[in-house]
Amino acid sequence: MAKLASGRVTEQSSELLDRFNASLPFDRKLYAEDIRGSIAHATMLHAQGILNDSELSDIVSGLQQIEKEIEEGSFSFEIGDEDIHMAIEKCLTEMIGDTGKKLHTARSRNDQVALDFRLYVQKNTLRVKSQLLKLEAVLLKIAKSNTDTMLPGMTHLQHAQPINFAYHMLAYMSMFKRDIERFESAYLRNNYSPIGCAALAGTPHPIDREKTAELLGFEAPTINCLDTVSDRDFALDILYNISVLMTHISRLSEELILWSSSEFGFISLSDSYSTSSSIMPQKKNPDVPELLRGKTGRVYGNLIALLTVLKGLPLAYNKDMQEDKEGVFDSVETALLSVEILTAALDTMTVHREKMAQACRQGHLSATDLADYLVQKCGMPFRDAYKITGAIVVEAEKMEVDLSELPVEVIKAFAPCVGDDVETFLDLRHSMNARTSQGGTATTETEHQIAWFAAWLESKARE
Amino acid sequence: MAKLASGRVTEQSSELLDRFNASLPFDRKLYAEDIRGSIAHATMLHAQGILNDSELSDIVSGLQQIEKEIEEGSFSFEIGDEDIHMAIEKCLTEMIGDTGKKLHTARSRNDQVALDFRLYVQKNTLRVKSQLLKLEAVLLKIAKSNTDTMLPGMTHLQHAQPINFAYHMLAYMSMFKRDIERFESAYLRNNYSPIGCAALAGTPHPIDREKTAELLGFEAPTINCLDTVSDRDFALDILYNISVLMTHISRLSEELILWSSSEFGFISLSDSYSTSSSIMPQKKNPDVPELLRGKTGRVYGNLIALLTVLKGLPLAYNKDMQEDKEGVFDSVETALLSVEILTAALDTMTVHREKMAQACRQGHLSATDLADYLVQKCGMPFRDAYKITGAIVVEAEKMEVDLSELPVEVIKAFAPCVGDDVETFLDLRHSMNARTSQGGTATTETEHQIAWFAAWLESKARE
Amino acid sequence: MAKLASGRVTEQSSELLDRFNASLPFDRKLYAEDIRGSIAHATMLHAQGILNDSELSDIVSGLQQIEKEIEEGSFSFEIGDEDIHMAIEKCLTEMIGDTGKKLHTARSRNDQVALDFRLYVQKNTLRVKSQLLKLEAVLLKIAKSNTDTMLPGMTHLQHAQPINFAYHMLAYMSMFKRDIERFESAYLRNNYSPIGCAALAGTPHPIDREKTAELLGFEAPTINCLDTVSDRDFALDILYNISVLMTHISRLSEELILWSSSEFGFISLSDSYSTSSSIMPQKKNPDVPELLRGKTGRVYGNLIALLTVLKGLPLAYNKDMQEDKEGVFDSVETALLSVEILTAALDTMTVHREKMAQACRQGHLSATDLADYLVQKCGMPFRDAYKITGAIVVEAEKMEVDLSELPVEVIKAFAPCVGDDVETFLDLRHSMNARTSQGGTATTETEHQIAWFAAWLESKARE
Amino acid sequence: MAKLASGRVTEQSSELLDRFNASLPFDRKLYAEDIRGSIAHATMLHAQGILNDSELSDIVSGLQQIEKEIEEGSFSFEIGDEDIHMAIEKCLTEMIGDTGKKLHTARSRNDQVALDFRLYVQKNTLRVKSQLLKLEAVLLKIAKSNTDTMLPGMTHLQHAQPINFAYHMLAYMSMFKRDIERFESAYLRNNYSPIGCAALAGTPHPIDREKTAELLGFEAPTINCLDTVSDRDFALDILYNISVLMTHISRLSEELILWSSSEFGFISLSDSYSTSSSIMPQKKNPDVPELLRGKTGRVYGNLIALLTVLKGLPLAYNKDMQEDKEGVFDSVETALLSVEILTAALDTMTVHREKMAQACRQGHLSATDLADYLVQKCGMPFRDAYKITGAIVVEAEKMEVDLSELPVEVIKAFAPCVGDDVETFLDLRHSMNARTSQGGTATTETEHQIAWFAAWLESKARE
Repeated sequence: MAKLASGRVTEQSSELLDRFNASLPFDRKLYAEDIRGSIAHATMLHAQGILNDSELSDIVSGLQQIEKEIEEGSFSFEIGDEDIHMAIEKCLTEMIGDTGKKLHTARSRNDQVALDFRLYVQKNTLRVKSQLLKLEAVLLKIAKSNTDTMLPGMTHLQHAQPINFAYHMLAYMSMFKRDIERFESAYLRNNYSPIGCAALAGTPHPIDREKTAELLGFEAPTINCLDTVSDRDFALDILYNISVLMTHISRLSEELILWSSSEFGFISLSDSYSTSSSIMPQKKNPDVPELLRGKTGRVYGNLIALLTVLKGLPLAYNKDMQEDKEGVFDSVETALLSVEILTAALDTMTVHREKMAQACRQGHLSATDLADYLVQKCGMPFRDAYKITGAIVVEAEKMEVDLSELPVEVIKAFAPCVGDDVETFLDLRHSMNARTSQGGTATTETEHQIAWFAAWLESKARE
Repeated sequence: MAKLASGRVTEQSSELLDRFNASLPFDRKLYAEDIRGSIAHATMLHAQGILNDSELSDIVSGLQQIEKEIEEGSFSFEIGDEDIHMAIEKCLTEMIGDTGKKLHTARSRNDQVALDFRLYVQKNTLRVKSQLLKLEAVLLKIAKSNTDTMLPGMTHLQHAQPINFAYHMLAYMSMFKRDIERFESAYLRNNYSPIGCAALAGTPHPIDREKTAELLGFEAPTINCLDTVSDRDFALDILYNISVLMTHISRLSEELILWSSSEFGFISLSDSYSTSSSIMPQKKNPDVPELLRGKTGRVYGNLIALLTVLKGLPLAYNKDMQEDKEGVFDSVETALLSVEILTAALDTMTVHREKMAQACRQGHLSATDLADYLVQKCGMPFRDAYKITGAIVVEAEKMEVDLSELPVEVIKAFAPCVGDDVETFLDLRHSMNARTSQGGTATTETEHQIAWFAAWLESKARE
Repeated sequence: MAKLASGRVTEQSSELLDRFNASLPFDRKLYAEDIRGSIAHATMLHAQGILNDSELSDIVSGLQQIEKEIEEGSFSFEIGDEDIHMAIEKCLTEMIGDTGKKLHTARSRNDQVALDFRLYVQKNTLRVKSQLLKLEAVLLKIAKSNTDTMLPGMTHLQHAQPINFAYHMLAYMSMFKRDIERFESAYLRNNYSPIGCAALAGTPHPIDREKTAELLGFEAPTINCLDTVSDRDFALDILYNISVLMTHISRLSEELILWSSSEFGFISLSDSYSTSSSIMPQKKNPDVPELLRGKTGRVYGNLIALLTVLKGLPLAYNKDMQEDKEGVFDSVETALLSVEILTAALDTMTVHREKMAQACRQGHLSATDLADYLVQKCGMPFRDAYKITGAIVVEAEKMEVDLSELPVEVIKAFAPCVGDDVETFLDLRHSMNARTSQGGTATTETEHQIAWFAAWLESKARE
Repeated sequence: MAKLASGRVTEQSSELLDRFNASLPFDRKLYAEDIRGSIAHATMLHAQGILNDSELSDIVSGLQQIEKEIEEGSFSFEIGDEDIHMAIEKCLTEMIGDTGKKLHTARSRNDQVALDFRLYVQKNTLRVKSQLLKLEAVLLKIAKSNTDTMLPGMTHLQHAQPINFAYHMLAYMSMFKRDIERFESAYLRNNYSPIGCAALAGTPHPIDREKTAELLGFEAPTINCLDTVSDRDFALDILYNISVLMTHISRLSEELILWSSSEFGFISLSDSYSTSSSIMPQKKNPDVPELLRGKTGRVYGNLIALLTVLKGLPLAYNKDMQEDKEGVFDSVETALLSVEILTAALDTMTVHREKMAQACRQGHLSATDLADYLVQKCGMPFRDAYKITGAIVVEAEKMEVDLSELPVEVIKAFAPCVGDDVETFLDLRHSMNARTSQGGTATTETEHQIAWFAAWLESKARE
């Protein structure tokens, strides 16, 4: 296969190499970025007097025509074109003649690839963020309706203390808020333009990198071109940010799966987000959260893959770096679809409040309150109150009642200092609502948190 | 979208879920395994009297017709079919009526997926092995022609001792031989049939799992069905085996890249396996080994991805496990293509013997020999001989000559016990050929190794 | 710090370098392997006439003395000794004079490290295997007492079909059996001796590598020395094998955690393997399985770490490879302790049969049986039977009874072909015991599996 | 072993569990953070009237005494104490009596661990940043002395275009600058106080979390306590940031290793940062960059380990999370030591300018300039200029001269439009200095970059 760039290499490359080397099957996703970048580059070349008016006009309309053809599916890609950049440039030259070849003045495939890929990453950073804001809105909506929905807060998957479901949803809002911030800071840190760096050393042509940076929405051009063509930090950043996001999603998914089990029964996912078994007609399976949890694997894999590729690479561009894109495309698409479907599944789930409340009556959830009572009312050191409460719980187990339902006399037998007011302390809803410290689960405090998140979401909407 | 399996779930699933849930876009690769497995299953059902003659005949010819359509590209896949198993079964039923539905008797999607995927892995384990044997043959061929081609053996990328190029190639033969053994042992360990395990518990139908195992080339059926539908060890094994293989390939690739640099100049890759730069007309780039080195990342990523998916999954099948396939497909295809192109690139490379020999005259490669001389002829403890040699090397550096060319007098000044026979010891080719211990680099010993590997390869060919 | 090996390097190394470079803080674990290897090497040198009787005797007794001191804690390690090999050799020379220096004849640190590390890996491969056999024995014991203990078999964490607890334990026996086989095949594949390979090229000394291989319990010496000093496949293999083992352990741990929750209540871990909360006196936490599940992370990390280290390393030894040991030590210790504590926790857990049986009455577990009935007795195609059963389940839900308790009349209204014998099919224990196909969950078939595993364990004990 | 917290659990825990469960062997590193956090907590409790003056005073002086003992090595740790928090609290209670037990009022081990660990991460984020600024200063110093030191810029490890060594160092400055920014943004994102969140739900005690946040240097308390005790994003962030940092270091290390080889010979590392071989007296090995490159593996491993641990964990605290610390400690210590030793190694290396310059005369480095000439002076489209230049390079190869030394006549034969002024274009230093575009390698432009980085470093110093 004879190729566009074939300076010194005299033999034809093998068909096997063409197939091995070609990035076109995946980097064609970058066509819009490539064309956008080329138009900005041409516009700058024209402003600098390197292209004349009609050359610019031919290039721009040629590129627009190509974009249209690609979007309509009428553009013919050939594997021998190797990559999307060559495919477009070759077509442009066939279309408008030698002027097409001038487009490559003062740039190289190295800075062109770096530009297209960075534009893709920046665009999708914003898209994931935008999807996450919708997810946050749904979580907030669920929280607002559930400030008084009590469920057992767990540690070690053991009932620990009664909390409210709004509070639980706000925990996830907190995680996704950090995710949004992580995407935002990566966006800012990487928002610099690579174009004009050429192969690795800059160019003798009198170009204006400030101009292209501005045209493409970057903060400024990058500082050092050798770094620029070698740099894939922006790709690592999005892979990592998506990995943390999917970690959070996997935790929520685990809970949705548990809550959907007949043992828990706390929620039902809508039939639209469940599936059945091919052999067991009674099954209703929480496929969505399971698949979300499973997809964590692939995004971790994509992160480790690119870290491995970059390890120990000398400067500047090496062909290994062609392996940078597929994983990013896959993680981005996974993230976008995952957040979207999670949002929909949450928005349509049914919360079984009675089952949650019922579950609170298992596991002596007010034990900490009893210990707190002993500290506050009897003046015991916490560690002693803790031990006595432990003994009372053992007694309750023997009697097969929950601590919240234990007769006061039994308690007094262990701790004579106890008064009748202890009953209030053992009440589960009282227990929940007692936790009024900042960040705590009391309904009043949860409502403060809701207000805080609502204000934050509004401020984001105004951005 | 209404689906084939829709026992209890009453609402229609959402289009979003269909898109999220569908494995058809990737598991259609398993069509041949699915059909092969179904024919074996139907044959067994018939032998057990569960299907009658005409039912078997209809099913088999229907499946063969579907296989033909898929291979010709005329089969129409619909995303709503969810997976390849449903797609084929639905088509079969449209084709042959209710008999098609009977095929699913005594099996479930769980054991069906486990079967198809395992057949794929076993088949490709053998294919990778077979490609590796071709690579070994080329390495052996290169070795045979280079038992006297001297190059600097390196540690820490510093010249250490002169070795021959055949010996260097045999190091890689050793690695790939272990790879072959690793694939072989995984093949045997996993060669058990999952079909007939149904959803997770076996089936009340009077089936014969020995029969299907035999028809499909397995050693025997698996022992416990709950494990069988949960087990993806076979997939982990091939991902790991490919990871080690690509580690080895990355090491050889690194050396090919170094050796192709103008600093080393030890080899030239054929133009058919090199590419040029889009901006620098003089460049000839070793893209093949670079890309091979880079592809190590993706196979590591695929391994970690599946390990992550499986971590902490309760028994038996969970939807997370749908994430098991794409990574395996990707690693398998990467391995097959990588070994093939590496074989071709090695087979067509040019070895620059003179450059290799020249390089040996840098770095005082016979220093260990001098130390050995001092031990053997002067009876010094090794550690003392080592120190004196170090001092002589410093002197040679000052005089700007290589140790192999240092006048004997200079050496005698440091070690009066030295005789004129030391000159032989400093000779580079003598140094190489002195290392006659088993496994060593002397040409004679290298030839033994070549004979050993040749015999091994022949025995493999006879298998 | 002046060092033992300081041939050409003239300045003193910096304290910072000493600290950075030293492997002594971790590789001192290899002291026993180092001494064992040195004694074998010395014995061979003596047999070859390179050491005389008294030299051998001095070396051996010196090394034994050092081993004793290290084990008693009286040996003084100095960071400046850099590694365990230097520390021991230096001490030996101080102890027995110049003879000590002769021990390093015909070997290098490269093959010495390769030997010591490989001995460690081989020894611990057998130790992990041996621990796993104890775990298998406990699983078998539990299985034997629970062939009639019914619990809901799950897919997607939803009740699917009734199975017995023995059968569930045998699923894990199957996994750990594959683990044992994986360790065994790695042991055999890597059981070759590196010693005598010297730096990278063999040695001119008339050594006998067959002899040292035999003395150290290896199958034979390795074939090619350049490969041998570069090879860390044996380390990757144990890291991978432990990763798969911990994946299996993480799955069992997840189930133990779920089963210990108050929602499931299927088992209780012994108090000896549970812990309490510092603030919630009523808690009993399943720390052991949680920590086991968590430790999966570190062994995955250790695997990816070494894969990363080896990626793209040119031959032969590079200092990067010093990073090979800590991860292996950590994974080995994690595996040994994890299997031991898991064995103990399983051995002391209480199985709550009544809770398990009770859970079976939730989730219409005999739905598949009803569908099978419709196929077998009414001659329906499976897919139709499946749909009707789905409708009956919806009806049972409306009536708030489990399918196993639904009046036959209700069923007949949906499927007039149904006879009164359907009741037997809906019975849960009947459902379990109907699955008599090979590998299935019927008590009779589970007993076959138990016998099979018992025979296998006995054969292992005889090895 | 009887333990401090032993509410409901009645049997003694097993010795095996103690050993398995204990985090004391590693979390003792957090003693200073634990004490600092406890003093702040006690101060707040006092301000809120929960502790009286003498209680506060006893607690503070007791804790300070313990800190002193730990630092002096006289504190006795017992494995049965399980973790550093228990060890300190137990000792405090032994020291000051029941008042010691009051310290745990309104907190739990969950928020205490979260606090200590976060304090550690925040402190070390700043320490790594501070080390990086020293590294930047050394890179800048090297750059300043080498703006005219020409070396071959490479892509694909092939000579591409002449660049200057300052420019090459500035590429690394750019990478490390991004690293610094990544650490800074993680610091800000995670700078919120967990203390006061108690087990998972807040506390009924009238605490003031703003106060403790302020005392400990946090921006504010966290918003939601359920999230707070489950959140390890801050740990993931530092693991990731160190992974990217080590990726950059591995790239520089690879170059230092290449440049130290006798083939390149571009630099010499100081003897203080090199080592020798135990068997080859002539060797001088670049152990420092090799080990730096190798250490990339462990930090990747630590990242993947924690990602794996957190995947799929339900809220809130689970014991798996105890696995969060060792990897972070290891990565932090690796990063601190790595940056320090890299700084020292760079600061003491010798740059061989003549060797670098010499290397530029290989590989036709001015080929792009010739193509640019053809574009600018002859008005050729770039793609045509590229092809003709390729042909001229082939001719130069045949004549065995570098393009920079090819007689003008030869060039004119291929491109008649060429004038004598082409000679200037072929001059290597002219080629380098022609690349004056922003970010390019011309000495003048490199000096702008140096000024820019110097200003940035100064602004950091003023922070």
